[in-house]
Amino acid sequence: MNFLEERIAKDGILKEGNVLKVDSFLNHQMDIHLFDEMGKEWKKRFEGKNINKILTIEASGIGIAAVAAMHFDVPVVFAKKAKSINLEGDMYVAEVESFTHKTKNQVIVAQKFLTEDDHVLIIDDFLANGCALQGLIQIVQQAGATVEGIGIAIEKGFQQGGQIIRNLGYQLESLAIVDGMDVETGELTFREQ
Amino acid sequence: MNFLEERIAKDGILKEGNVLKVDSFLNHQMDIHLFDEMGKEWKKRFEGKNINKILTIEASGIGIAAVAAMHFDVPVVFAKKAKSINLEGDMYVAEVESFTHKTKNQVIVAQKFLTEDDHVLIIDDFLANGCALQGLIQIVQQAGATVEGIGIAIEKGFQQGGQIIRNLGYQLESLAIVDGMDVETGELTFREQ
Repeated sequence: MNFLEERIAKDGILKEGNVLKVDSFLNHQMDIHLFDEMGKEWKKRFEGKNINKILTIEASGIGIAAVAAMHFDVPVVFAKKAKSINLEGDMYVAEVESFTHKTKNQVIVAQKFLTEDDHVLIIDDFLANGCALQGLIQIVQQAGATVEGIGIAIEKGFQQGGQIIRNLGYQLESLAIVDGMDVETGELTFREQ
Repeated sequence: MNFLEERIAKDGILKEGNVLKVDSFLNHQMDIHLFDEMGKEWKKRFEGKNINKILTIEASGIGIAAVAAMHFDVPVVFAKKAKSINLEGDMYVAEVESFTHKTKNQVIVAQKFLTEDDHVLIIDDFLANGCALQGLIQIVQQAGATVEGIGIAIEKGFQQGGQIIRNLGYQLESLAIVDGMDVETGELTFREQ
């Protein structure tokens, strides 16, 4: 197990409905040392890629992306989520439908912060069905910018998001891929990487 | 002018209604080098304080707090905002009313991440009327924890938030205090510190 898998095994909490709670270190309380390790690992995995900007989405992607950005020495843009349009200025807007909740959400980035010259690393905390991620990719494409790679902390390997993204040809680096979770025993199965 | 005041003077955009837009470096696109400088400066200003946790609020406080936390070597907890209660587990909830919009919002933190043993530095990007900040202080008090200090990037000195907080006896360190802004000339007046 790598450092993140170990931490998930130690502090993650399984709940009914394939819920994996990691709010003690990832998305409510944030372990900044862990984020630093994650940034270092992504820097290694995306070695040689020409990355000049990190794109993430509010709220729980922001802390991870900000600390990772120290390793890439680039600025971070965080996309905003909204239920309806109420925007000033020129914005890229991606409409994404939640697979689970069937609700429509918008992912929004100001046009001035993403241009065709940008080579973007997308960072987020979770990848399950990949809704938010698809919105972020759509926005990079609207801008004419290039997705150089995608860094995810925890991928739920038993949901479809990761497979879709890999099928589309993107370099997706999930630091932990959970292929199975047993609420009864509390056991997690991580994919060999 | 210090490094943050210089950056605001250079890249901040003034708009009607005392709006100061700093989304190119602070709260949409994030300049991580600048955040690192801010963290270093707060570390200096809160020298000698026994701080074991940083508390901030989604979304735009998170990146600043995460990078600042590298200097304090402590975890960050970010409070969530909500319009209505829909929570599982034990939460601290502070209800705050917006001075400007007259809307009520809730500021929420899971109880397990804030206890009476915690010595908290509160970090946020903006302080104007201080609504969100009052909610965060209320939550620290609910937990029986101690507010060791408050670090703000930009304070609007012509609004009441900062004065209230200082009157209450808190050590409030705003890295830039804007005392006046002239939309016609684009001129900003910073308070001498």
